[in-house]
Amino acid sequence: MARNKHPEETVNFILNVAFRLFMEKGYEYTSVQDIIDHLDGLSKGAIYHHFKSKEDILVAVTERMTEQSNQMLARIRDRSDLSGRDKLKAIFKESINRPVQNDIFTVAPNFHKNPKLLFSLLHDTVEEAAPNYILPIIRQGITDGTIETDYPEQLAELIILVANVWMNPMIFDSSEEESYGKFRIFERMLRGFGLDIVDEEMLERLQELTSIYQKNKYKYM
Amino acid sequence: MARNKHPEETVNFILNVAFRLFMEKGYEYTSVQDIIDHLDGLSKGAIYHHFKSKEDILVAVTERMTEQSNQMLARIRDRSDLSGRDKLKAIFKESINRPVQNDIFTVAPNFHKNPKLLFSLLHDTVEEAAPNYILPIIRQGITDGTIETDYPEQLAELIILVANVWMNPMIFDSSEEESYGKFRIFERMLRGFGLDIVDEEMLERLQELTSIYQKNKYKYM
Repeated sequence: MARNKHPEETVNFILNVAFRLFMEKGYEYTSVQDIIDHLDGLSKGAIYHHFKSKEDILVAVTERMTEQSNQMLARIRDRSDLSGRDKLKAIFKESINRPVQNDIFTVAPNFHKNPKLLFSLLHDTVEEAAPNYILPIIRQGITDGTIETDYPEQLAELIILVANVWMNPMIFDSSEEESYGKFRIFERMLRGFGLDIVDEEMLERLQELTSIYQKNKYKYM
Repeated sequence: MARNKHPEETVNFILNVAFRLFMEKGYEYTSVQDIIDHLDGLSKGAIYHHFKSKEDILVAVTERMTEQSNQMLARIRDRSDLSGRDKLKAIFKESINRPVQNDIFTVAPNFHKNPKLLFSLLHDTVEEAAPNYILPIIRQGITDGTIETDYPEQLAELIILVANVWMNPMIFDSSEEESYGKFRIFERMLRGFGLDIVDEEMLERLQELTSIYQKNKYKYM
């Protein structure tokens, strides 16, 4: 592979190789040397030119996934055939059902060992997802009468933080039983805000993702 | 000060001096050298023997405060004259009213620059506060009929995470207006769980702490 001519292609190539290895070996059991060994002769210097550490590669991999996820969020936000409430429901359903979620939960990074990843997820949730996708939907819901709140910014932030962070079995290392309890508490929390938008299908999918994560966490130990 | 003879006293001495400087100058504007300069001739080696970095000192300072806070939580948990619901209310009231909160919000650390501090707070909230203090109170509430849930572990975790982390203006760098909205959403979230336990006095105190933090954040800039 030609170097330096197309830096974007080089970055994409590194991310593709790294992601495939993370999937096969698990993130914690992949070394930077493993990645270099699969880069068709690309030098150690070339990889360190773009990424300071393995964690930086992981953050870049997840940011690329976040971009795809944001496109999905934008598509739902901009539909004209759904109420605010139904858009919120569609967003949860599609987010959790995306096949790429299986891949993420297979990589199974340890968030305690990778604080940058947690900060990146928190940042994306609070600075991107909440104001750009959830908030406009809640504002539409207030207008069309399907959502009722005087504090749309804070409601958007709370809901998406609870869904993306607290209910993420990778961050809190939740068992399937714990994930089940969290889902039920989330369901009741939303109902307290007049939002009856989660269903059993979502619960089953969350259980499935938790189980993928728990299985892969110890794969190579 | 004699060295090595009483390592615990040395640690306490370092923490006292560091905390006083953090209070006076703000955490971000205090250097390790500032701390050494105020340690009555204790050497740089002595401080690095106990702490690897300034952030480690901050984590130790806050852990010492957490211990005091946990004693307060235990006292309320073990009272025999209150229902589960009233204990939960007492815990929020006392937590927010403790005078030491003014000190913490004056130190005003930047959580983005100090990920260890965020992890320490998350760990304490999820691994200590939720299971050891909030959960037994919720279980008592289920027994005495003042709290109703089938998922006491997850309800304990959600409530204390929202209160300690999301409503902490230092972590999310909230303005007074944002803090106000968060408090109102928290109030409604609790009411969704049948818990009518926050009052205007707590709201005023949260606004006061937010204002202390916002004033001190830029003190020395």
